Amino acid sequence: MAGGSEELKLLGAWASPFALRVKLALGFKGLSYEDIEEDLGSKSELLLSSNPVHKKVPVLIHNGKPVSESQIIVQYIDEAFAGTGPSLLPADPYERAVARFWAAYVDDKLLASWLQSFRGKTEEEKAEGLKQTLAAVEHMEAAFRECSKGKPFFGGDSVGYLDVTLGALVAWAHAGEKLYGFRLFDATRSPLLNAWVERFGALDAAKAVLPDTDRLVDYAKMRQAEAAAGAAAAASSNN
Amino acid sequence: MAGGSEELKLLGAWASPFALRVKLALGFKGLSYEDIEEDLGSKSELLLSSNPVHKKVPVLIHNGKPVSESQIIVQYIDEAFAGTGPSLLPADPYERAVARFWAAYVDDKLLASWLQSFRGKTEEEKAEGLKQTLAAVEHMEAAFRECSKGKPFFGGDSVGYLDVTLGALVAWAHAGEKLYGFRLFDATRSPLLNAWVERFGALDAAKAVLPDTDRLVDYAKMRQAEAAAGAAAAASSNN
Repeated sequence: MAGGSEELKLLGAWASPFALRVKLALGFKGLSYEDIEEDLGSKSELLLSSNPVHKKVPVLIHNGKPVSESQIIVQYIDEAFAGTGPSLLPADPYERAVARFWAAYVDDKLLASWLQSFRGKTEEEKAEGLKQTLAAVEHMEAAFRECSKGKPFFGGDSVGYLDVTLGALVAWAHAGEKLYGFRLFDATRSPLLNAWVERFGALDAAKAVLPDTDRLVDYAKMRQAEAAAGAAAAASSNN
Repeated sequence: MAGGSEELKLLGAWASPFALRVKLALGFKGLSYEDIEEDLGSKSELLLSSNPVHKKVPVLIHNGKPVSESQIIVQYIDEAFAGTGPSLLPADPYERAVARFWAAYVDDKLLASWLQSFRGKTEEEKAEGLKQTLAAVEHMEAAFRECSKGKPFFGGDSVGYLDVTLGALVAWAHAGEKLYGFRLFDATRSPLLNAWVERFGALDAAKAVLPDTDRLVDYAKMRQAEAAAGAAAAASSNN
């Protein structure tokens, strides 16, 4: 299916970890694509018509047919281009189920609690978010041990589905450390993941895709300033 | 992989729609299994050690190896027993992605908003839940049209992944109608799904698994009474 007639377009946004996930998968598979940067403040007609349900990036459009939701897109890429580049999901059904379990855990628990640790509405909510983040990191450290079996990546000798799923957060992990002084994977709590972050970030395909930390930090500060201005405007209009 | 030496144990709970999903998948695939009913008020050591991360049913234990999370279990069953019974996921990668997209939608949007419509803390929250439920039903009606292509099931001529995913809610949809007077899929808003509910519920494999509506209604009332008693006890102990 990966002949020269294949057309791949990615509707993404450079800072979105979910879009980064798809870029990583396409990169590791060696697939070329048209990278279309969406303005999330003014979404394109193509995005709205391609993902009418969630209206979100990323959307991968393959020969005119759209696929949404980052983990589903990565699985689609692996299945539709099974003959191209390395397989991302393990061949064994049990190992596939384990990889899917932890990939779901990354979004539902690790990412959700990490976001809460700095976006929580109260200090109490933030503290609870941090507590849950630390528990999730502990689980992910065990997951790395289980999946990698002593090898460099979740996928073993080469990157796989979980490397892509978690790897998309690596640039934001660095930015989060600069912004909030909290290192998501450190040498004490999660030595295996700490080493994996370095190893993953050093891969050519990752370096080609993951954004610069300082650029993400500036972006996050700009978004925070916009949110604060929006909140102030809303408060004054309520008077 | 489906020889006589296969051992399948399901840790479930009779009223859990997530456990029902796994029972439906096993039933449609024609796989026999040991059905282990968990007491959710006092979970077994086997459940806690098999799903140490979420500590929840369902868990499928295949030859001693546990798989958790209902949608992941159903995909596992389909892949590990590819040679047994019908395939649940479509063969085509694009159709698989579409099925996975809507299956995720069922849990993340339809089920979440439907639960909020009667469990919301305020009348406002409940009203918002109902509004979102109606929007989700509209999307699922379109999803049925897209996936079934004029045939009786999401999977086409026979049941597939989405039939199992949504079908697990059919018994609760009937119970919800008796409890709250709200019919999740009705003939006006979602005529295709309304007809599908009847068709799905009439299948032998569904009848063998889906619980009786009145038993679910009694169970829900008992749980509500327990929750109210718990809340009253908590309130009095706070004085």
